Amino acid sequence: NGAQRGMHSGLREERGSRGISGDRRALGTMAKRVAVVLAGCGVFDGSEIHEASAVLVQLSRDGAEVYAPNIPQMHVVDHVKGQPTPEQRNVLVESARIARGNIKDLATLDVKELDALIIPGGFGVAKNLSTWATQGKNCSISKEVEEVLRAFHAAHKPIGLCCISPVLAAKIFPGCEVTVGHDTECEQWPYAKTAEAMKELGCRHINSQVSQVHVDHRNLLVSTSAFMCNAPVHQIHDGVGRMVQEVLRLA
Amino acid sequence: NGAQRGMHSGLREERGSRGISGDRRALGTMAKRVAVVLAGCGVFDGSEIHEASAVLVQLSRDGAEVYAPNIPQMHVVDHVKGQPTPEQRNVLVESARIARGNIKDLATLDVKELDALIIPGGFGVAKNLSTWATQGKNCSISKEVEEVLRAFHAAHKPIGLCCISPVLAAKIFPGCEVTVGHDTECEQWPYAKTAEAMKELGCRHINSQVSQVHVDHRNLLVSTSAFMCNAPVHQIHDGVGRMVQEVLRLA
Repeated sequence: NGAQRGMHSGLREERGSRGISGDRRALGTMAKRVAVVLAGCGVFDGSEIHEASAVLVQLSRDGAEVYAPNIPQMHVVDHVKGQPTPEQRNVLVESARIARGNIKDLATLDVKELDALIIPGGFGVAKNLSTWATQGKNCSISKEVEEVLRAFHAAHKPIGLCCISPVLAAKIFPGCEVTVGHDTECEQWPYAKTAEAMKELGCRHINSQVSQVHVDHRNLLVSTSAFMCNAPVHQIHDGVGRMVQEVLRLA
Repeated sequence: NGAQRGMHSGLREERGSRGISGDRRALGTMAKRVAVVLAGCGVFDGSEIHEASAVLVQLSRDGAEVYAPNIPQMHVVDHVKGQPTPEQRNVLVESARIARGNIKDLATLDVKELDALIIPGGFGVAKNLSTWATQGKNCSISKEVEEVLRAFHAAHKPIGLCCISPVLAAKIFPGCEVTVGHDTECEQWPYAKTAEAMKELGCRHINSQVSQVHVDHRNLLVSTSAFMCNAPVHQIHDGVGRMVQEVLRLA
């Protein structure tokens, strides 16, 4: 949004002694405007925090507009106990924790103003943006999220997905190619059954390592496994960073 | 903790094709055990999420043990409105969102088992770990946090601080050297008065850029300004990463 962009460019003019070569604006190319859709704050009931941070760190070299739906969370999970509590929280309000207040209601997203879309993972994608957590491949996607995904797809603007969020594309773009990591369950890939569900939805699932991204060039989908892999957080950070770079390259 | 360390080392044996040269364990040196103390989840009432993520990303090449006090938050702030709400939340429970559940009660921290201490910033440091938010340089530090800081200091184990958390050291280690960025207020340094308060506490404040860290070799304190600077999140991420690297070098 305006305040954040102003801050970035002001800063860049005054400083930016490091990393300038990675800065598209400093190189004189057009900055890309990327919509990031969050689903709350915390792996078990919202957006996974380190995936979302990795997306925003990578995008802060360009410009991010952060959105979330203004709806109640399905769950509030006590992240110590791993159990739901009776609390009620709002997806937009909790997502604002990750966005440091610089966030907009998803209902206001205008695809014409934006170059790409990125949806980080976390159980919030399966609980607040869709009903995947309870219904798996028979899930429904929230109307607002489905419309946004279809709008970027129809406008041939790239969509970046990681962890569980590729299921959103698998559900509404039949025949698309995505990765959620590996399709054989083991200690390293505890959620491998998700890959099986993708195939049952008629998609092509591509096995990949946590460091890799898969690009579906026909549908302009970029996916990476992130925390679907039982991997240390710096490998997640790097894999998500690559997904964002690939989205920017396609935008 | 055990589960997290197990995950890391299992992963490292199987994979780790990238970034191995930065991996102290892969190089055969002893892994360092670093305590990270969180103060909730979200910049306005807890730990700043991107600072905490940057610490954990950098530490995931070593081993992090994450702690938080099991106490009520001073505030729950609606991060869209920037206003407190009537809700009650617990610092340990909310910090667990950042730690993905791998967190311990600060009361159980044993300095003998650890090599270093890192406290990310965010208003939670000023609201939940101390009373800086309301009392400034006349603040008190929570007993549990003060004991932990004094224990690492007495054991000559390094302490890493960023953003507002250097005020904890300034308050209890008179004469120490820290940085919270710049001491002259401007758009880029909106919290410059903090540096003034440090000097009034008898500390030496060193002006620094967001990319720099300051090391007080006598007290083994490593500090960096992080979000005290109005800078884009990738510069925060890189500065905090450098602070963590310096802490590990001293540990």
